[in-house]
Amino acid sequence: MNHNINATIDTLPTPALLVDGQRVHRNINRLADYGRSHGIGIRPHTKTHKSLAIARHQVAAGAVGLTVAKVGEAEPLLAAFGDGPADILIAYPTVDPARASRVADLANRCTLRVALDTRQAIAAVAGAASRAGSTVGVLVDLDVGPGRTGVPSVDALVDLAEAVTHAPGLRLDGIFFYPGHIWSEPAEQADPLQRVADTLAEACDRFDRAGLSREVVSGGSTPTAYQSHLVPQATDVRPGTSVFNDLNTLRGGFCSADDIAATILATVVSDAVAGQVVLDAGSKTLTSDRCVPAPESGYGFLPAYPEATITKLTEEHAQVDIRQCPKPPAVGERLTIIPNHICPCVNLQDVAWWQEPDGSLHPLTIDGRGRLS
Amino acid sequence: MNHNINATIDTLPTPALLVDGQRVHRNINRLADYGRSHGIGIRPHTKTHKSLAIARHQVAAGAVGLTVAKVGEAEPLLAAFGDGPADILIAYPTVDPARASRVADLANRCTLRVALDTRQAIAAVAGAASRAGSTVGVLVDLDVGPGRTGVPSVDALVDLAEAVTHAPGLRLDGIFFYPGHIWSEPAEQADPLQRVADTLAEACDRFDRAGLSREVVSGGSTPTAYQSHLVPQATDVRPGTSVFNDLNTLRGGFCSADDIAATILATVVSDAVAGQVVLDAGSKTLTSDRCVPAPESGYGFLPAYPEATITKLTEEHAQVDIRQCPKPPAVGERLTIIPNHICPCVNLQDVAWWQEPDGSLHPLTIDGRGRLS
Repeated sequence: MNHNINATIDTLPTPALLVDGQRVHRNINRLADYGRSHGIGIRPHTKTHKSLAIARHQVAAGAVGLTVAKVGEAEPLLAAFGDGPADILIAYPTVDPARASRVADLANRCTLRVALDTRQAIAAVAGAASRAGSTVGVLVDLDVGPGRTGVPSVDALVDLAEAVTHAPGLRLDGIFFYPGHIWSEPAEQADPLQRVADTLAEACDRFDRAGLSREVVSGGSTPTAYQSHLVPQATDVRPGTSVFNDLNTLRGGFCSADDIAATILATVVSDAVAGQVVLDAGSKTLTSDRCVPAPESGYGFLPAYPEATITKLTEEHAQVDIRQCPKPPAVGERLTIIPNHICPCVNLQDVAWWQEPDGSLHPLTIDGRGRLS
Repeated sequence: MNHNINATIDTLPTPALLVDGQRVHRNINRLADYGRSHGIGIRPHTKTHKSLAIARHQVAAGAVGLTVAKVGEAEPLLAAFGDGPADILIAYPTVDPARASRVADLANRCTLRVALDTRQAIAAVAGAASRAGSTVGVLVDLDVGPGRTGVPSVDALVDLAEAVTHAPGLRLDGIFFYPGHIWSEPAEQADPLQRVADTLAEACDRFDRAGLSREVVSGGSTPTAYQSHLVPQATDVRPGTSVFNDLNTLRGGFCSADDIAATILATVVSDAVAGQVVLDAGSKTLTSDRCVPAPESGYGFLPAYPEATITKLTEEHAQVDIRQCPKPPAVGERLTIIPNHICPCVNLQDVAWWQEPDGSLHPLTIDGRGRLS
């Protein structure tokens, strides 16, 4: 790995992940402004960037806390809060003893909350917290549509919340939801978000009547980020991708081309096959994720060659159909790719390159990379 | 990252990559025996395991050399040859100055060959080798069907080979091909491999008449590994996946279930949604690669629950449809997954766990992980 700090855009070893610093700041600040103007807390999901440096910027912009998927990702992010109190949400069920023990230990170092949806998770975290002498905040997970995690009904949610209040070492803090099924453009989101709001209104009412805490009601996603005010029960939202954006958010209508803050720099390594060039960014760099709003669009977009299509990826090769390009890319040429889904691409890099407006590049460590558990 | 060497299969943090040591040795030895009995050199593609320890086993079993995709992967593997001469093939075009310079430096430390298919690659490597005072062996790449890299005709191959012989710092060593388009079962491979053999026979004849060296004619893939003798022009073959195997090779009919030597260990983290459980191995562990011979089969196979289907992956979640399972998996239960495509899964792990027949687990460093350039 060559982390030469004198790297330039022309000499950087490829494939490389480029991060446009100015756009990152603009994306962070826009979301922070939206949250402030609507009284909604921003609790960014750091899965997208996995970077302490960017987490610091999000905290500086007023984030109420940071979200992670796994406890291993939380540990390197505590420093993002500087001298202030650290506040981390693990948006993932903790059910096994090894992970529960790490969660409980971390709760001795910061305000730590976990989202969970089973009695087994309650037992695992409660047991570990009791042993560690810590208190873990719990948000009970309600499925509002995506069908991934979360209990299916308000009745089941209230039962789960009651169980939390009876478990040692746990503090019921409220409700967790994820409107990940809503991929429609902002103009079309009012109806589905109204259904989410109706469900949450019922849940909040039931919590209030039962005397159950709902200090935190955490939801949100990047597609619905700027419509979060349509779910007034939410106290905070957890967009992740919006810090960088990608072809998913661009094609979905959730950002403009100027908001794309992370791209892959690749080199054309072959033009031996007619009508095609090969780039040195394969599935080991771009992943095999499709573009959700445009699944047949290929494996990323080349802004300099909009007529080109990345038709096939193998681990180290991207095969690009250039038959529609007025002027084909040349072997050795460096191309920028907008990936379909930026989050797993970031996880494939040890270091990204933070680009300043003057073009200078600085290594950006992906602190949370590969922290699977 | 918890690399506790007292980890057991019941306490290992999940998701984790398990490697069955006995099966790895059996897979390596079977291929070595096949090569010996047919007089075909084995030059394993190390992209699958990216591990110095496993590369040592392959060299000990008689490999004529090792294959890598990128020069960064080659560097940690030199030690695999112990006191013997190191022999590395970079099965990837080198066109940019930064990479060419690393290739040329490495050629001062071992027998190094590159496959290439453009004049730009010849110029880049020749320039770098001249500056480094090294000699880089070249195999000229002929497309025998997959249409990924390689020149399209024997005429073009001869022209490219002639250009190599005129370039300083380069030594023409022969021909490179990759029958990656042949995914049919062994019984069906005779015809397509005959076509490859016919093309190579023509190329070899033309090389001989022009006095061009073809000391090395390197081909092969895992699907065609045990039919390599049907292409008698090949001096060596480069199977990668066969060291571990995966659902691709199992469903394709290229191995048996007992040959699967690498699996993912995952934990059931949620059963809140009816008819479904969620595992803690998402696309960050399994990748979004489909099974080539059975693309609609889901994102991996659960041997203990053959009726289950992994229907959807997000980064940290595998959603498993368990409606057909006589007895559903329980929250907290640990399950083994056979991934669709093992190679990119290995690249997502810093450490795998080598399992001995007695069940003991030993950390196995993935030395080549993340070496993108």
